[in-house]
Amino acid sequence: MVHRNHAKGSIGTVPMRWHGDRLELLDQRLLPGEEHWITADGASAVAQCITDMVVRGAPAIGITAAYGVALAARHAGAGDWKSEVEQAIRELAASRPTAVNLFWALERMDGVFRDCDALDEATRRLAAEAQAIHEEDLAANLAMAGHALDVMNPERPLTVLTHCNTGALATGGYGTALGVIRRLHEERLLTVVHADETRPWLQGSRLTAWELARDGIPVMLNADGAAAALMARGQVDWIVVGADRITANGDVANKIGTYSLAVLARHHGVGFMVVAPSSTVDMAMASGEEIPIEERDGIELREIRGVPVSPDGVRVFNPVFDMTPAHLIDAIVTEKGAVRNPNITGMQSLFGACKG
Amino acid sequence: MVHRNHAKGSIGTVPMRWHGDRLELLDQRLLPGEEHWITADGASAVAQCITDMVVRGAPAIGITAAYGVALAARHAGAGDWKSEVEQAIRELAASRPTAVNLFWALERMDGVFRDCDALDEATRRLAAEAQAIHEEDLAANLAMAGHALDVMNPERPLTVLTHCNTGALATGGYGTALGVIRRLHEERLLTVVHADETRPWLQGSRLTAWELARDGIPVMLNADGAAAALMARGQVDWIVVGADRITANGDVANKIGTYSLAVLARHHGVGFMVVAPSSTVDMAMASGEEIPIEERDGIELREIRGVPVSPDGVRVFNPVFDMTPAHLIDAIVTEKGAVRNPNITGMQSLFGACKG
Repeated sequence: MVHRNHAKGSIGTVPMRWHGDRLELLDQRLLPGEEHWITADGASAVAQCITDMVVRGAPAIGITAAYGVALAARHAGAGDWKSEVEQAIRELAASRPTAVNLFWALERMDGVFRDCDALDEATRRLAAEAQAIHEEDLAANLAMAGHALDVMNPERPLTVLTHCNTGALATGGYGTALGVIRRLHEERLLTVVHADETRPWLQGSRLTAWELARDGIPVMLNADGAAAALMARGQVDWIVVGADRITANGDVANKIGTYSLAVLARHHGVGFMVVAPSSTVDMAMASGEEIPIEERDGIELREIRGVPVSPDGVRVFNPVFDMTPAHLIDAIVTEKGAVRNPNITGMQSLFGACKG
Repeated sequence: MVHRNHAKGSIGTVPMRWHGDRLELLDQRLLPGEEHWITADGASAVAQCITDMVVRGAPAIGITAAYGVALAARHAGAGDWKSEVEQAIRELAASRPTAVNLFWALERMDGVFRDCDALDEATRRLAAEAQAIHEEDLAANLAMAGHALDVMNPERPLTVLTHCNTGALATGGYGTALGVIRRLHEERLLTVVHADETRPWLQGSRLTAWELARDGIPVMLNADGAAAALMARGQVDWIVVGADRITANGDVANKIGTYSLAVLARHHGVGFMVVAPSSTVDMAMASGEEIPIEERDGIELREIRGVPVSPDGVRVFNPVFDMTPAHLIDAIVTEKGAVRNPNITGMQSLFGACKG
């Protein structure tokens, strides 16, 4: 097995910029029309940006929250700094109730904070910890891409189809599934990326196409319903997607539309790969049947930019995620390595047995 | 086999109203926000409405064009009426170059016209022929629904999923695939209709949901990518769709996204039915491989209501139709009857051998 080093490629548009006394966040709500950076100079402003979805993507949210804690210490009063930082952690934890990486990052920051006796030390160490979380995320993404290429082992340039946005914009840089695509491009092993527009939020059109076009990676947009026609024409070698949660048996919850792609991939003999950090793996949950699937307001389909596109009050089925069973997945790739043809045995060999 | 009579149900919102000296057309571009009727008082105005997609759906276009020819005779000058009607037929034939039903309807009108010696006679007979074409379309739709229910033979209320709009709005009333859904509802054999929103044109949200809600038929909208999750939950008994062209071996070209549903239906053990008038069947074409698939401008995905949702100039794969192979189809239903598990033998037994 060849372990590939990271070639000299772009890590993409990282959606947060740390300046020591303030954090700049790219307002992803305005993409692709406008590239506007919002400056957050305290934990409350950071929390508000997370709540308002200025920043989205589980890894990016975790990193942003960590910087928020660092800002709380940086701007705390000398007298009551401990309660100010504690309050900031509580406020950030409440910014998005369901993002697992958010709580994971805040726990790490809290551990460092509790180990500090003086404000000076806390300011220095919390900033360093936030930067470490950020750097580790980027490193994990680069490692995932290497493992993914080992699985693909391409002998010629590949055509890849992806769903939603799993790129630099969703992480601390490079991306998860989109990081694999970057790596293929860097190694001249990518023909073109087909990007599902990803209804209802259009992350594919708004974010993935923007990110790839910006970095000169060839991208072609399609309606979600057209992915099957691409496969039937033999124009897709691999489907590469991210994950929101992976259970102990290798089932995967991801953006609505992912399961459809997995069924279509199997029908057409197309490879199907899931790429996500190991923090996404939940070995305490036995199977995808247990994953609660959030359903959002139907207005996301009933209106487009405030204009009704369906009759008043029509009922809508609008789940955020769907569940792809392990048997439809060819490989799950994390920074720890890849699990091929995932099942409970393969998952345990890489992630250990369930502690739950 | 029970042959079902048409119960007392609604035939839906018929998109054209004939008044003898003028034709009113429902402007489908403004639905669901506004119900506006455009009055066309001559063949040129009718042709313009077809070109501008005031009316859409192959059967509806054919009926509308036939009324256009009738209007040409009605308003022709006594002296030069023959050349005026001929010119009208040419103009209507050029209004939408690819709609098969348009040419079929105009050929019927032309045959009647050539058989007329006097303007009075032509005016009367062309109006009668247009009305006959309209009435036959409605009768065909009612017949299709009966044949479809014979195939389904439901013992309990069914849940049906459909794609695009194949309803009254696309025909002379009642609808093709949506006509089957109407019939199920009339016979209290329908639980709910799941309607794909149908990107990029949103015919499902804009037209199907509007049409069903108006007639009190329970409908629930979903993103195209969420159809598979409904099937995985066991919430779909049948997928019922229309067709733009059916070849001699039973392959079907229909709105992009149809093929994806057929693969998903087979994977989940869900029935997959195609419902279309026999004029859609092209026994001179051996298989779907021969069907040219039109691709439209990428702006349909790059922009929504004039607002860019993807980066400037991004490439787009935007086919209008896809091709579903016969082996994924459980039944093709026309007004002449149903072909189960379609193949060349079954198709020839109902539609005769190829004349090409």
